[in-house]
Amino acid sequence: MASCHADHELAPVRRVAIFGGTHGNELSGVMLVKYWLENGAEIQRAGMEVRPFLTNPRAVQKCTRYIDCDLNRVFDTENLSKQVTEDMLYEVRRAQEINSIFGPKGSDDAYDLIFDLHNTTSNMGGTLILEDSNDDFTIQMFHYIKLALSPASCPVLLIEHPNLKYATTRSVGKHPVGIEVGPQPQGVIRADILDNMRRIIKHALDFVQLFNWGKEFPPCSIEVHKIVEKIDYPRNEAGEISAFIHHHLQDQDWQELRPGDPVFFTLDGKAIVYEGDCTVYPTFVNEAAYYEKNQAFTKTMKVTLTAKHIRSSVH
Amino acid sequence: MASCHADHELAPVRRVAIFGGTHGNELSGVMLVKYWLENGAEIQRAGMEVRPFLTNPRAVQKCTRYIDCDLNRVFDTENLSKQVTEDMLYEVRRAQEINSIFGPKGSDDAYDLIFDLHNTTSNMGGTLILEDSNDDFTIQMFHYIKLALSPASCPVLLIEHPNLKYATTRSVGKHPVGIEVGPQPQGVIRADILDNMRRIIKHALDFVQLFNWGKEFPPCSIEVHKIVEKIDYPRNEAGEISAFIHHHLQDQDWQELRPGDPVFFTLDGKAIVYEGDCTVYPTFVNEAAYYEKNQAFTKTMKVTLTAKHIRSSVH
Repeated sequence: MASCHADHELAPVRRVAIFGGTHGNELSGVMLVKYWLENGAEIQRAGMEVRPFLTNPRAVQKCTRYIDCDLNRVFDTENLSKQVTEDMLYEVRRAQEINSIFGPKGSDDAYDLIFDLHNTTSNMGGTLILEDSNDDFTIQMFHYIKLALSPASCPVLLIEHPNLKYATTRSVGKHPVGIEVGPQPQGVIRADILDNMRRIIKHALDFVQLFNWGKEFPPCSIEVHKIVEKIDYPRNEAGEISAFIHHHLQDQDWQELRPGDPVFFTLDGKAIVYEGDCTVYPTFVNEAAYYEKNQAFTKTMKVTLTAKHIRSSVH
Repeated sequence: MASCHADHELAPVRRVAIFGGTHGNELSGVMLVKYWLENGAEIQRAGMEVRPFLTNPRAVQKCTRYIDCDLNRVFDTENLSKQVTEDMLYEVRRAQEINSIFGPKGSDDAYDLIFDLHNTTSNMGGTLILEDSNDDFTIQMFHYIKLALSPASCPVLLIEHPNLKYATTRSVGKHPVGIEVGPQPQGVIRADILDNMRRIIKHALDFVQLFNWGKEFPPCSIEVHKIVEKIDYPRNEAGEISAFIHHHLQDQDWQELRPGDPVFFTLDGKAIVYEGDCTVYPTFVNEAAYYEKNQAFTKTMKVTLTAKHIRSSVH
């Protein structure tokens, strides 16, 4: 391991944003961000700006996922560079505003770190979402958070994939971090879920402060679940869903799914089994918002990521 | 008890409806009714018509609770007798259609028995909702269902109240029965919840068939939870919710709530306790759809109802 100890100096992390309400009916982040806008002491740390921000206020107002389209999928070059028009989708216009405040995406001027707070109806616990398997800083942060929360579980979902492009709201920042906590119904605040999300943010900000203060973080490894494939519901000729998540799979996010295990059931009593050729780890199982995205669950595989030794170049 | 055995002959129950989709995002009823419209054998019983019916198809199509207003609150004389106009609320027009098919409400022509299938995000289990404490037939049916499901719990909620008027969709029928199964997020189908709802309908229809066949049901008693009062969330001066369901109350539907027990929490860490003067039994705790109805939970008290001996007048 000694050969991994090559020093890796990174710029300090001075500008941090915490997004809530990217989906207006995922209320933990909405309520925490609203609260922090009024009472920010809890998220302030010396030597850095931490800015809470409500990303989709119109969707929050209506307590709906979005107004015209999913804000969390439109931060691509095409949408961010579109000419503004009268009939522009609300979320595309909003994405451009967010990009101008916290980006521009991919530029030196972009915020250093953006957390985006989400809830899921799936039994995913407090999940950290990673976009780039080479992002040493974020992997080190996740390693720190996982240790701080231990023995409680804190899964990491890696959404890096050759074909699946997310273009998330948080991707405007240099280090994008999704925080996905469930299970919680849309439009509901559960105390336990809110508390879980709040702890994750606390430890994440503590990490950034330690980093900025010059603490060195030696090389580390974390186990992550890498997205392999999205699986749709079975459908009839009319395209309607004809089978639902089997009770054996319900709430079993991150657990082994083996070939032959039941995955779906039909209303006339048939079970449909998983026909893959190897064990996978499903997540986003039975997420309400993904029925319209043709996604019953997401297949992941376990991968170990390592991060280099890091320390701040200035402190 | 012998004095209670006075014979109570009731007309047979020939026309039964099963409503789903009164709230378009409560999917167990939506999916069961859609399935039974294609494959009805499971709900058919000799000597009676059992008609599955999707009550709010536009809300189902959009997977939303309602289009213009809550369909489950507009079956009052005022709305049912309104002149049809261009700008009439969709659900009011739909209520009139439903009333003309299954009613008219309060008339001899009305359907004998209407089940309306609902889901809740609250941890209410499979709950039967009773509208009238003098409805011997329905109390006898609930007694039968509770026994059939035993040892599983099957709570009964009595919504008879001097001030709270529901004007439910099912109230078009002579015997209105609400079936409220949870916890299930809006927009999600859970196998366990669907199965629970399906069992309740099976036993209910079995009871009706036995009744029609001439089986005598001796006097019986059931324990019910009678609605006492709806409790709103604490709110700030702007009317926004300022405290949420405390984790001690979350998922504790039907359990004792005693004076001094924590009920709400604020984001700055304070607990708000229950200040009533006697033990109550909360239900609809943290129901997503009731945030907009200013209802954090419903206080109930335990009451024992008795039903007379019943038998069918014709069989």
